[in-house]
Amino acid sequence: MEVPPPLVLKRSLFVPSKTLMGPGPSNCSQRVLEAMSNPVLGHMHPECLQIMDEVKEGIKYIFQTLNDATMCISGAGHSGMEAALCNLIEDNDVVLLGISGMWGHRAGDIARRYGADVRFVEASFGRALTLEEIRFAFATHKPRVFFVAQGDSSTGILQRHISEIGDLCRQYDCYLVVDVVASLGGTHFLMDEWKVDVAYTGSQKTLGGPAGLTPISFSKRALTHIKQRKTKPKVYYFDVLLIGQYWGCYGTPRIYHHTISSTLLYGLREALAHFCAMGLKNVVQRHLECSQRLQLGIEELGLEMFVQHEPDRLPTVNAVKVPFGVDWRKVADYAMRKYNLEISGGLGPTVEHVFRIGLMGENATLEKVDMVLSILNEAIQSIKLRAIKTERSKI
Amino acid sequence: MEVPPPLVLKRSLFVPSKTLMGPGPSNCSQRVLEAMSNPVLGHMHPECLQIMDEVKEGIKYIFQTLNDATMCISGAGHSGMEAALCNLIEDNDVVLLGISGMWGHRAGDIARRYGADVRFVEASFGRALTLEEIRFAFATHKPRVFFVAQGDSSTGILQRHISEIGDLCRQYDCYLVVDVVASLGGTHFLMDEWKVDVAYTGSQKTLGGPAGLTPISFSKRALTHIKQRKTKPKVYYFDVLLIGQYWGCYGTPRIYHHTISSTLLYGLREALAHFCAMGLKNVVQRHLECSQRLQLGIEELGLEMFVQHEPDRLPTVNAVKVPFGVDWRKVADYAMRKYNLEISGGLGPTVEHVFRIGLMGENATLEKVDMVLSILNEAIQSIKLRAIKTERSKI
Repeated sequence: MEVPPPLVLKRSLFVPSKTLMGPGPSNCSQRVLEAMSNPVLGHMHPECLQIMDEVKEGIKYIFQTLNDATMCISGAGHSGMEAALCNLIEDNDVVLLGISGMWGHRAGDIARRYGADVRFVEASFGRALTLEEIRFAFATHKPRVFFVAQGDSSTGILQRHISEIGDLCRQYDCYLVVDVVASLGGTHFLMDEWKVDVAYTGSQKTLGGPAGLTPISFSKRALTHIKQRKTKPKVYYFDVLLIGQYWGCYGTPRIYHHTISSTLLYGLREALAHFCAMGLKNVVQRHLECSQRLQLGIEELGLEMFVQHEPDRLPTVNAVKVPFGVDWRKVADYAMRKYNLEISGGLGPTVEHVFRIGLMGENATLEKVDMVLSILNEAIQSIKLRAIKTERSKI
Repeated sequence: MEVPPPLVLKRSLFVPSKTLMGPGPSNCSQRVLEAMSNPVLGHMHPECLQIMDEVKEGIKYIFQTLNDATMCISGAGHSGMEAALCNLIEDNDVVLLGISGMWGHRAGDIARRYGADVRFVEASFGRALTLEEIRFAFATHKPRVFFVAQGDSSTGILQRHISEIGDLCRQYDCYLVVDVVASLGGTHFLMDEWKVDVAYTGSQKTLGGPAGLTPISFSKRALTHIKQRKTKPKVYYFDVLLIGQYWGCYGTPRIYHHTISSTLLYGLREALAHFCAMGLKNVVQRHLECSQRLQLGIEELGLEMFVQHEPDRLPTVNAVKVPFGVDWRKVADYAMRKYNLEISGGLGPTVEHVFRIGLMGENATLEKVDMVLSILNEAIQSIKLRAIKTERSKI
C-alpha cells in the first residue's frame, strides 16, 4: 500500500498579515523578517558561531548579567522552563512553585516529572504573592529550588520583590528560577543584582524575534551546583554543561551538541540588535507608558482591569475583564475579521473571564494602544447591539 | 553595576552564501528562504493550524505512513531522538542500541538518563550490523526498545534490513525506533510496511528545510503502549500525547502545548511541498544516482570510500578516506576559502580519518557532484604540493 502525496501541498503557502496584540508572539519588524531569508549556515561555521556570540552578548545585556553560562535553548519558551528545572533538580529535591496564574502549575508538572517533591505557594485570586506569603512558605517547605514567573501571562499579574526573594533564597540555600518570558523588556529585571540563579525569556514577546530560540542564563552559583550533581540531568538536549560548551561559555573548545537553526539566530540577532540600540531603560519606559495609556483608556470605556491592585499589573500582557453578558470570543472574532487584529481571551484560570491585550515590541506604541482601544470598543458595542437585536427578534 | 549594550550588535548582520556539502544542513532553496520572511502568526491561529496540518500530511507521505501520531517536535534533530526515547522508556526498561557510528552511543546516553537499562550491539568497524548480530543480541538482551539509525552520518553507513528488524521486534514485543535523520529521501524507507514504531528525520537534510523542527511519527502500537505507561514521560516538552493534541492528531480539540515557530513552519511546509511535487521515488533515485557518480569519481581520483561493502554505503553522507599524509582540515579549509564550499571532516569514530561529502536536497545534482569532485581533487593536490615544497625548503 502506497501513501500518495497530499493534495494540500499543491496549493501555495498562504500567510495573512495580522497585528498580533495577544499574549505573544508579537509582530516581528521588517528587519527581523528579512534577516530570516538569508542563506542557512552550518552550525559549526565560524560565521554562525560569531552570530551566537553576538546573541549571547545581547542576552547578557537584556538580563543585566555577567554570567558566563548565558545561551539559548533551541526550542520554544517552554524549553527554557524545562532546561532551568532539568539542570537544577535531582530526585526528591523540594521544589517550591509560586503561583499567580497557570505558569507555576506548569512548572510544577515539569518538576514532578523530573522527580521533584513539589510544593506550592498560591497568591489570592487576581493578586501577586506577598513577601509574607513567600517567607512563610520558605519556612514551611525549606525548598531547594524556588520558581516564580515575574509576569504571568495567563492573568496579567506582575510579581514584584524579586530582589527580596533573591535574598531569601540565599538564606535558605535555595536556587531561584525566574520566568521572565512575558515580562522582560516590559518591566525592570536585574538578574545579577537581584541574585537570580536561572532566568529565561521568550524571543517572540517584547524582543520581537521569532519563536523557537529561548534565551537563558545560569548564575555561577547555579553552575557550581549543577557541576556537583550526583546524577546527570535527565535530558541530554537540555544539559546546560553541554549546550554551554557549544555556545562557547566556558572557555573550552566548542563541541557540537545539536544543529542550531541559523535562520532563527539571524532573526533573534537582529531583534536583539534593535533592542540594544533603543536601550533597555527606554524600552521598559515605553512599555510602561503604553500600558498606562491602555489602562486609562479601559477605564474611560467603562471597562475594568482584571488585576485590582495597580502595582501588580504586568505592562506587557494586560488582562481586561469581559463585560457581563458579552461573549469574549465574538469580540475577538470581530476584531480579527474586520481589522486582522488579535485580541486574546483568557488562559487557564482566566478562561472566559478576560481579554488579554499584548503591548509588546513593535506593538508597544501609543498609536497601537489607541487603535486597540478603539477596535475593542467598537467590537463590544457591535456584539452588544447584535445581542439586543437577537433578543428583540424573539419578542 | 550596569551591563552596557554590546558593541558587536551595532554592526550589521553578516551572512555569507555557501554551498553546504557536509553532513547537513544542506542549502535551502530560494522558495524556502523567501517563505521564512513572511509575517509571523500566532501558534493557535487557524492559518497556522492549517499549515501544521499540511506539514503533517507531507510527513506522512515522506515516511509512507498513515499514523495519526505524526507531528513535529519543536527542536533540532536531537529532540526527535529525545522524544522517541522519552515517550517509550520507563525506569529499568532494557533498551538495545544498534551501533554503526556515533548515533547509537548518543541514543544510549539519552536512554540512560531516562532510567533505561542500556545494552549495545556493535557492528564491526566500517560495517553495518548484520541480521545475525541483531538476532543474537535480541536473544541475549530481550529488549523493550531497539534503536537503530538507518543512516549513521558519522560513518556514512546505511543500515539495511529494517523490515526484518521490524518483524524481529514484533516477535520480542519490542518497540522499534529508527533514526532516519540523515537517510530519509536518500534511500527507501517504508515506515508502516516495515513495522517501524517511531521514526524521526531532520528537516535540514534531503528535505532542504530549515533546522529547528523535527518530523516524527509514532505507530498505533507505540501510542497504545505510551497511553498505558505507569508513569508520565519524564519531559513535558517531549510528551507526545500532549504535542499530538496540539497538532490535532487524536481527533480531540487542539490544546496549546508550546509556541511553535511559524517561521520554521513556513520553511518546512515549502520544503515538503517541493519534495512532494518531485515525488518520493524520484527524489530517492536522484540521490542514489548522485552518490553512485560520486563513488565512481572518488575511485577515478585514486581515493577510497570509507565503507568497503558497497550496499552498506549511505547515499546522502559519503565518507571518503583521507589519503595518507594529507591533513583533512587543510583540504576542507582550501575548499571553503577558495570556493565557499563545505566539505566536512569526520565525527566521533571517524574524526581525522574521513571527509564527509553530503549530497542532499538542493545539492544532490550531478552538476554539484562533479563540482565537489573537482574541488576536492584540486584541494588535495594543492595541499600535497604545499607539503612537498615545505619539505624541500627544509633541505
